[in-house]
Amino acid sequence: MRLQDLGSDTGHLRETTLEPAQAWRGGFLDVRRDRVGLPDGSSSHREYIVHPGAVMVVALLEDGRLVVERQWRYPIGKAMLEFPAGKIESGEPPLRCAVRELFEETGYRAAEWARAGFTHNAIAYSTEGIEVWFARGLTAGERRLDAGEFVDVAEASLEELESAAQRGELTDAKSLVGLLWLRHWREGRWPLEWAAAPAREGASQSTMADSFTPPEPALRIMRP
Amino acid sequence: MRLQDLGSDTGHLRETTLEPAQAWRGGFLDVRRDRVGLPDGSSSHREYIVHPGAVMVVALLEDGRLVVERQWRYPIGKAMLEFPAGKIESGEPPLRCAVRELFEETGYRAAEWARAGFTHNAIAYSTEGIEVWFARGLTAGERRLDAGEFVDVAEASLEELESAAQRGELTDAKSLVGLLWLRHWREGRWPLEWAAAPAREGASQSTMADSFTPPEPALRIMRP
Repeated sequence: MRLQDLGSDTGHLRETTLEPAQAWRGGFLDVRRDRVGLPDGSSSHREYIVHPGAVMVVALLEDGRLVVERQWRYPIGKAMLEFPAGKIESGEPPLRCAVRELFEETGYRAAEWARAGFTHNAIAYSTEGIEVWFARGLTAGERRLDAGEFVDVAEASLEELESAAQRGELTDAKSLVGLLWLRHWREGRWPLEWAAAPAREGASQSTMADSFTPPEPALRIMRP
Repeated sequence: MRLQDLGSDTGHLRETTLEPAQAWRGGFLDVRRDRVGLPDGSSSHREYIVHPGAVMVVALLEDGRLVVERQWRYPIGKAMLEFPAGKIESGEPPLRCAVRELFEETGYRAAEWARAGFTHNAIAYSTEGIEVWFARGLTAGERRLDAGEFVDVAEASLEELESAAQRGELTDAKSLVGLLWLRHWREGRWPLEWAAAPAREGASQSTMADSFTPPEPALRIMRP
């Protein structure tokens, strides 16, 4: 069957919630075990993580190189090479999160931003979606790591990162998705729409990003 | 700092296990909450999923098109377009898992296989790693879906899938990593080493894949 012949009707695949249930809740992980109805009328359980979503930033230096990080990822048991990224705080617009994470982790501020795409990184067991943003017109500053956060920052060319990916030294899925976007963008296939950076928090001027800020103070969610 | 100047010493980033703990265990999710030591001597907790690992198969038809699937992903709440993939069963060699999943979900058997790469899809909170395999020399047959499994199968060109990715209709991270590999492989940058398919299970002839099969019967792990 050709892709376009699949059609948009997905009723024969659909699973419905029969009984939602919280299975466990930690400081970071919110684990659910829902009883669900399957397309054939039978039922089963689905176990998954509820995640607030995240953003990743592909930050371009003047010479075309990218800002990358290395940090310890405890579940993997090693320091991983990746693009700057972080979890969205409660009610935070994704672009504001992107601006904040880039600054906090690397010290860079960007003059222009473009939303590239979106990726779901663990569709079998997590609601997580990661927005992929590009940033350019970078100005270096003093970063502000959270307590308990230890991050190396470096600059690398697309070719260096692709080479690391091919050798199996860059395995982080979101960062590999960043390399996919970079390659297609650089070759003119996947254009980006750039816009000026949103006004800084606390500035009086209103921006699109500000207009989505909820009235209640943002909660600081514990970082993984 | 340049990428190569980061060096291989990661002691200043390393987190150590102080007290491992099972937080919750379902039929599928194995949730841990370990107390860990941070590089500055302080301690914190890390919450994560222990996952057996998975394989994804990029299966190439004679005309260069790819075998894709659409299935309901409950955490996302919709049917997702993706390459065939599945969890590794207890003690199962990854290539055997790749052969099994491709056959069970699509009915295809492949004459040749090549291991492309590896990706970690949720490094903040899961041990999961996904092996990326390419398959070619396909023969269609009758698939054998597990009970409670509902999967559409279709064929699509790389260009169709890249277009779906650009439009935000293909967001599954592992499949986007497959598109990265496909593009670089097709343009000659990331070559693959092809080998004949392992002998089928039950056949007398021994293969590399067979030699890693553990003596005890493989446990059937519940699918997410």
